Amino acid sequence: MNFLEEKILRDGNIKEGNILKVDSFLNHQIDVDIMRQMAYEFQRRYRDVEINKILTIEASGIAIATLLGHLYDVPVVFAKKSQTANSTDDKYVAQAYSFTHKKMNNVFISKPYMKATDKVLIVDDFLADGAAAHALIDLVHQAGGTVAGLGIAIEKGQQKGGATLRAEGYRVESIAIVESMDWETQTIKFREQPELPLQNTNLKLG
Amino acid sequence: MNFLEEKILRDGNIKEGNILKVDSFLNHQIDVDIMRQMAYEFQRRYRDVEINKILTIEASGIAIATLLGHLYDVPVVFAKKSQTANSTDDKYVAQAYSFTHKKMNNVFISKPYMKATDKVLIVDDFLADGAAAHALIDLVHQAGGTVAGLGIAIEKGQQKGGATLRAEGYRVESIAIVESMDWETQTIKFREQPELPLQNTNLKLG
Repeated sequence: MNFLEEKILRDGNIKEGNILKVDSFLNHQIDVDIMRQMAYEFQRRYRDVEINKILTIEASGIAIATLLGHLYDVPVVFAKKSQTANSTDDKYVAQAYSFTHKKMNNVFISKPYMKATDKVLIVDDFLADGAAAHALIDLVHQAGGTVAGLGIAIEKGQQKGGATLRAEGYRVESIAIVESMDWETQTIKFREQPELPLQNTNLKLG
Repeated sequence: MNFLEEKILRDGNIKEGNILKVDSFLNHQIDVDIMRQMAYEFQRRYRDVEINKILTIEASGIAIATLLGHLYDVPVVFAKKSQTANSTDDKYVAQAYSFTHKKMNNVFISKPYMKATDKVLIVDDFLADGAAAHALIDLVHQAGGTVAGLGIAIEKGQQKGGATLRAEGYRVESIAIVESMDWETQTIKFREQPELPLQNTNLKLG
């Protein structure tokens, strides 16, 4: 069990309707120690990949994106949400349905802040149906940039986002993947995650 | 001229209607080096004050709040905005008029994340009329906490927020204070800021 799975067990709450409440450390109050550990863990998992921009969507992804930008020393961009934004000459616009707010959002980035030379790590606090992730990927592609991968704090493994993105060929690294949870018993099961094989090591594992 | 004033001169744009556009480094794309320098500068200016929580409001304040939380190693809370939030048993709620979106927002914090023992540094990217700052102060006070001070990236000195807060007795540290600006000539004037006197030094300034 890793640090985030332990933190979820200790401080998370399961609410009726398949809701995992982690706002004591992830998306309302922010535990900077957990955020730092996540940033280091994403950097470790993506150690074989070149990244020159971090992309997230307002608001909950900004904290982890900022610490990752700090670690990599690269610019961070947070895509903005708006119900009114029109596609204009100066914005890339994509659409994402918000299951939380039950409405379609326009998600946009001002054109100067996403470029064809960008190798982008997309990060967010949650991955469920993948609507936000797909919108962010769309924005990177509109600019001609490359999606280096996705870094997710908590993936809801029962929902289709992660499976769809991986089937589409994207690399998705989720620190905790919730396989199932039950609010009546407050029980949660995490998916076992394979270790990424290391290359070019001095020693062999016995 | 400090690092942020220089950055504003270099990369900011003045738009018609007294708008200072700094979204290439502050509130859409984030220049982590500027953010880090701001975090260090707030910590330096508030070196005589005990702080055990950082408070901001979604979304633009989260990046600087996170780096400050990282420096101080204290929890960060971002207040959430909602048009619908009712005052309930489990939330502190205040109101703030958004001049950008021309509507009244409810601003709230879940009660467990603000306490009577909290000594709070409130940070945000902009201070103009002070609506958001006053709402955040209100939330801290509802919890019985103490406002240690406010840390603002860019204060619009022509608008009343900073003057009102200081008249009310709050300490406001703004890294750049815009005294005036003119979009036709793209000219900006910053307010001179007095150095905070140091106490208990080994050496005297000659």
